[in-house]
Amino acid sequence: MSVALQNESITDLDRYMVDLGHAARAAAAELAYAKPQHKNRALLAIAAILDQRRDFILQENSKDLEAASKNRISDAMLERLELSPARIDAMIEGLQQVASLSDPVGEISELRYRPSGIQVGKMRVPLGVIGIIYESRPNVTIDAAALCLKSGNASILRGGKEALHSNQAIYQCIHQGLKQADLAEHAVQVINTTDREAVSQMLKMHDCIDVIIPRGGKSLIERIAGESIIPVIKHLDGVCHVYIDDQADRQKALDIAVNAKTRRYGVCNAMETLLVAEAIADQIMPEFIERMSAAGVELRGCERCQKYDNVRINSATEEDWVTEYLAPILSIRIVDGLAQAIEHINGYGSHHTDAIVSEDYSRTREFTRRVDSSSVMVNASTGFADGFEYGLGAEIGISTDKLHARGPVGLEGLTSQKYVVFGDGNVRS
Amino acid sequence: MSVALQNESITDLDRYMVDLGHAARAAAAELAYAKPQHKNRALLAIAAILDQRRDFILQENSKDLEAASKNRISDAMLERLELSPARIDAMIEGLQQVASLSDPVGEISELRYRPSGIQVGKMRVPLGVIGIIYESRPNVTIDAAALCLKSGNASILRGGKEALHSNQAIYQCIHQGLKQADLAEHAVQVINTTDREAVSQMLKMHDCIDVIIPRGGKSLIERIAGESIIPVIKHLDGVCHVYIDDQADRQKALDIAVNAKTRRYGVCNAMETLLVAEAIADQIMPEFIERMSAAGVELRGCERCQKYDNVRINSATEEDWVTEYLAPILSIRIVDGLAQAIEHINGYGSHHTDAIVSEDYSRTREFTRRVDSSSVMVNASTGFADGFEYGLGAEIGISTDKLHARGPVGLEGLTSQKYVVFGDGNVRS
Repeated sequence: MSVALQNESITDLDRYMVDLGHAARAAAAELAYAKPQHKNRALLAIAAILDQRRDFILQENSKDLEAASKNRISDAMLERLELSPARIDAMIEGLQQVASLSDPVGEISELRYRPSGIQVGKMRVPLGVIGIIYESRPNVTIDAAALCLKSGNASILRGGKEALHSNQAIYQCIHQGLKQADLAEHAVQVINTTDREAVSQMLKMHDCIDVIIPRGGKSLIERIAGESIIPVIKHLDGVCHVYIDDQADRQKALDIAVNAKTRRYGVCNAMETLLVAEAIADQIMPEFIERMSAAGVELRGCERCQKYDNVRINSATEEDWVTEYLAPILSIRIVDGLAQAIEHINGYGSHHTDAIVSEDYSRTREFTRRVDSSSVMVNASTGFADGFEYGLGAEIGISTDKLHARGPVGLEGLTSQKYVVFGDGNVRS
Repeated sequence: MSVALQNESITDLDRYMVDLGHAARAAAAELAYAKPQHKNRALLAIAAILDQRRDFILQENSKDLEAASKNRISDAMLERLELSPARIDAMIEGLQQVASLSDPVGEISELRYRPSGIQVGKMRVPLGVIGIIYESRPNVTIDAAALCLKSGNASILRGGKEALHSNQAIYQCIHQGLKQADLAEHAVQVINTTDREAVSQMLKMHDCIDVIIPRGGKSLIERIAGESIIPVIKHLDGVCHVYIDDQADRQKALDIAVNAKTRRYGVCNAMETLLVAEAIADQIMPEFIERMSAAGVELRGCERCQKYDNVRINSATEEDWVTEYLAPILSIRIVDGLAQAIEHINGYGSHHTDAIVSEDYSRTREFTRRVDSSSVMVNASTGFADGFEYGLGAEIGISTDKLHARGPVGLEGLTSQKYVVFGDGNVRS
């Protein structure tokens, strides 16, 4: 490609992105005031169109799958990229489920009279325009679009380059649904270029985008957080811990630790490090080692830990304490007690989800206060850290940030609150 | 200064800032778990020491005032810089008042059982380390330190260069109070250099500072927001509107409009533009013009507006609609009705505080929903937009951002919420 042509194409991209941003801003103003039933009508229309256009979607998806096979992408990525009739069913159910949730927008809370006579409360409002950047799963296009639409936000979606045909096919259905429901047709926009520069442009469009939500691997998220001048709601890694206190109920401790590790390995709320108080280690370790072996989990432990089984427990390094395995591997450390457990979690952990197993009142209180993580649990498996389990009705991700949204982010996390004041001619003296 | 010396001094600053950051981070961990009575004891100790060391503080302040006079700074800035016995009284009362507020940290809300049997709620926790950058008022040192301390956050404060002696004197009192109460002595730190580079360093210390709050003029805040890689809670300008609807009660409308403009001119919640529905303008304009004239307020109006008095109403330009006068100047525009008023406010305003005066049910509902400002009011003066009037007990500023905190920011705005989960051995299936 000649230099002249390349410049031409950059200019086109600039124009394309600016148009996208302005269209989103205009749609956001309309969407913020759209009635709940209007937004729900659009969600259900999109669901119906997805159902009608199954063949088209699968056909476009097969183009992506073919190209991916030629490019020899990994089986795991192929699995994420593939749309099946069951996955289309799940997208349709997702839309119906989001439509059935309460509308968060306009909700007024804490409306109280003040001594001056004014009544002050908070009204929940959309954030405006949300930019979502994700990787190979095309179903994220529907999930993200649905949650943004329901929460009254316009969205600009940028999926993985390997899913371009699938995402554009889904986008056609979304667009058709918005038109059918007579809702702002630019309420959802899916970027139709695989040019990486489009992402860099997005991250600079602070006039047109209010928040960026990256979804994907750690390297994607770190790149975006480092480059974006727009606030980012992000999820880095989930190095989750279970601490078994010496005042733990032995059976609860074993059940929780086994569940937190083996329920699913590839999820961010899986336990990656088990901490056991020295005084209870004799009662826990032998059975726990058996159960992990039976499940095929590789164990890496501290010195004190290896005494229980230096064949099946490999030696853990410093690196292990900070690693999110997302695999059947577990690091184990025997600690003196609560203080060392908290120090370990706050020092090595990722502030995602951490649990204590203990029957001791003061220690559970101290753990919940001192552990600086988005979810802190007592006598429950870290596997519960999830928007649906928490009753949010839906989840766009789990935030490991502190500002704005922490932990599972549902519809509320996509809104903020403004103050409303109701008076009767009140003036301030 | 030689190049070698300059490099030396930059290295010193680097080291100083890094030490400050690490000390703050360590103090934050202690402070997050400090008991309410412990933090209050520190606040009251600082108050007592300020009272004992009045002479010292005034003496140090006089050094700043002398230097300022020599540098011929404006009278307004001198006024802000000056500490009087009354201002020291106000600082002491401020500390006592913050001590008397409820402690927000550790508060658990929305603790509900889920179908799985776990109980899920939210616990309020400090943000960590807060960096505050402000201008010439030395009393901000106490206000900011007190609010951060009470909300369990460590703080790094950077005041104006012209207030260095005053701020360091106040800092001595704070430091002494923290030691006396045996609380983390680096819970509050005041930067003791006037080097502008210290601010640039602060804005990069994302490992050690969780949020930056700039307090001061628009240019300071814009510079900081543009440079900071740490999230910023900021307040830009307050171009506030009152819209008098044709269904307004005439007397309420006049009282609110006059109060919103004339209560105080230099505050961010003062009305800067009045919008009047054409159908009620005849009933409003003559008396309103009289009252503004009596108060000495310069009027700048649209064409339709000038028909009421083309002598006392100057012609408004586009620039007027976006200007925060902070002075006895008011722009007035006669609009067709509600739709044009909302369009004007969302288009020209600063999303700070805007009010409608109307007795019409549907219009007041539409206004509160559609106006995209941090405070939206019905039949009340914009002058009420204030943390104390809203019952926050204290205020560190008014945020015109959307993410995290919007409107007056009190203790709650300096905290976030983590999830807490209480179980009884629950595992996820």
